Amino acid sequence: MLTDISKAAEILREHDDFLILSHANPDGDTLGCAYGLCGILQKMGKRARTLCADEISTRMEYLKKTIVNQSFEEKTIVTVDVADVKLLGALCEQYSGKILLAIDHHESRMEFADYTVVDPTAAAACEIIYEIAEEMGAKLDGEIASCLYTGIATDTGCFRYTNTTPKTHMIAAKLMEYDFPYGDINYNLFDLKSRGRIELEQSIMNNMEYYSKDRIAMVCLTTELIKQHEGKVDIEDFNGLASMPRQIEGVLIGVTVKQKGESTFKVSMRSAEPINAAKICALFGGGGHARAAGCTIEGNLDFVKAKLLPVLEKAVECV
Amino acid sequence: MLTDISKAAEILREHDDFLILSHANPDGDTLGCAYGLCGILQKMGKRARTLCADEISTRMEYLKKTIVNQSFEEKTIVTVDVADVKLLGALCEQYSGKILLAIDHHESRMEFADYTVVDPTAAAACEIIYEIAEEMGAKLDGEIASCLYTGIATDTGCFRYTNTTPKTHMIAAKLMEYDFPYGDINYNLFDLKSRGRIELEQSIMNNMEYYSKDRIAMVCLTTELIKQHEGKVDIEDFNGLASMPRQIEGVLIGVTVKQKGESTFKVSMRSAEPINAAKICALFGGGGHARAAGCTIEGNLDFVKAKLLPVLEKAVECV
Repeated sequence: MLTDISKAAEILREHDDFLILSHANPDGDTLGCAYGLCGILQKMGKRARTLCADEISTRMEYLKKTIVNQSFEEKTIVTVDVADVKLLGALCEQYSGKILLAIDHHESRMEFADYTVVDPTAAAACEIIYEIAEEMGAKLDGEIASCLYTGIATDTGCFRYTNTTPKTHMIAAKLMEYDFPYGDINYNLFDLKSRGRIELEQSIMNNMEYYSKDRIAMVCLTTELIKQHEGKVDIEDFNGLASMPRQIEGVLIGVTVKQKGESTFKVSMRSAEPINAAKICALFGGGGHARAAGCTIEGNLDFVKAKLLPVLEKAVECV
Repeated sequence: MLTDISKAAEILREHDDFLILSHANPDGDTLGCAYGLCGILQKMGKRARTLCADEISTRMEYLKKTIVNQSFEEKTIVTVDVADVKLLGALCEQYSGKILLAIDHHESRMEFADYTVVDPTAAAACEIIYEIAEEMGAKLDGEIASCLYTGIATDTGCFRYTNTTPKTHMIAAKLMEYDFPYGDINYNLFDLKSRGRIELEQSIMNNMEYYSKDRIAMVCLTTELIKQHEGKVDIEDFNGLASMPRQIEGVLIGVTVKQKGESTFKVSMRSAEPINAAKICALFGGGGHARAAGCTIEGNLDFVKAKLLPVLEKAVECV
């Protein structure tokens, strides 16, 4: 059942012994929500703890400081930033059907909780947690603020992306009234690069192919190329690589082709206005947003490129 | 004479025929201030134009949209984000001694105007322009907002740096109520890279030297190395390179040594807490901030490294 901030606040106030679930392969928003809400509830004198199917990146371990691990028998299960119960990963089976409240900001989602608060205009689910806390008259502190800030910063690329709204900045302003090292947090989230990541980025730039007078940039991450970095890069180092080709000046369509199997290639596409990447990817059975989309093409690499390039070349010629 | 927002608003209200001067080698803040203030004054029915000794980067040409070039005999000269009259560059001689109002946010500065409004707690001088506009009850629009936003975004690294305050976010929130393409602006300012810049970054990473168990990273930009990129990189491509070594995971001191003459090297240093880069650079006659400092050392490259490295190694051992 869809409900609002005020009802969500009431539910949280009236219950106790909370287990707060994050989605698997957790990002800053789902973790910021979980640790932030956990801290808020504990500060209200309630028992609460967090749980996630997968491990937390070392870059975000500071989030754990917000809470003390409490042991108790969980009575109230809440999910944060979870658009589908399946996204709980390994925790799905155990908790499916038992979730009282889902707090989320995804536009397209599958209902799975007794009560759901969803606000697709929120850049991050942490914005909604902040609003619920305000509604409850909850007291925050620097550690809780650092969690909610983390969620907002990660989901907006530090206020760069178009999902950022005036409200996003207003909430950031209010959170920053508390004392927490936002400079260090931003440095860790947005500036720091592992040696593996640096190598990978170099490899991508060295393997970049340019077409249509440099208006198309494409890189192919073949199994062979990825193997060259084995042992030096970890899974996190692959985050956000798909945006690299389009960050090159003059490029209107940036494409990353990643080999997924012997003859399966996952295509990630980023485009400049007015080129609609979703429409291009739809031609190959994929989809997404106007400026960021994807599809999967079967065949060997030459076949994939022969399929893609004429369509891309036509698209840039029409600009 | 030092004055306040209210007096600055009065001065602007009571005068006309404004020439607004930016500092030479202009950044987003000085340009955002100049074009923003010019737009505000024109919207109030006054005549105003901007002037800068140096050219505007193509990435910031959208700022010019705010204003129409008006010709008139200037009567009131205002500087924005200018800490010293010498920083007007080629315009210094012509305008020195004729400046009525200076609007600035630099902590250490040289007085040169009849009236000066300075707020060192402002992350960007554009924050002060916003406050003056509010005090005047001036009307903004999307184009003026885009100028003031540009200044705030550039000076805070898009809200990443520790100069960002709650007030910075509050002003950003208010500016974003106007319609302007902040997503495109942020993309151009923070994501887009020229082919030359990409090459230069690769070259820097390939030439990175590591010391003290990879806790020190140092790169030497010799004349010879820079020459390899001649014709492919422009002056803008060199911006912010000094922060690269410290962005590598595990690095506590990042150093960029840039050759300035046959045997003159400019050292830029970035450090992690608690290492004080300013104190290290002071040993070589330089200075700066605790986490970002610099100095100049005379001698050949081997001599420079032999001078620097023992001090740096000692510093990381004490952490």
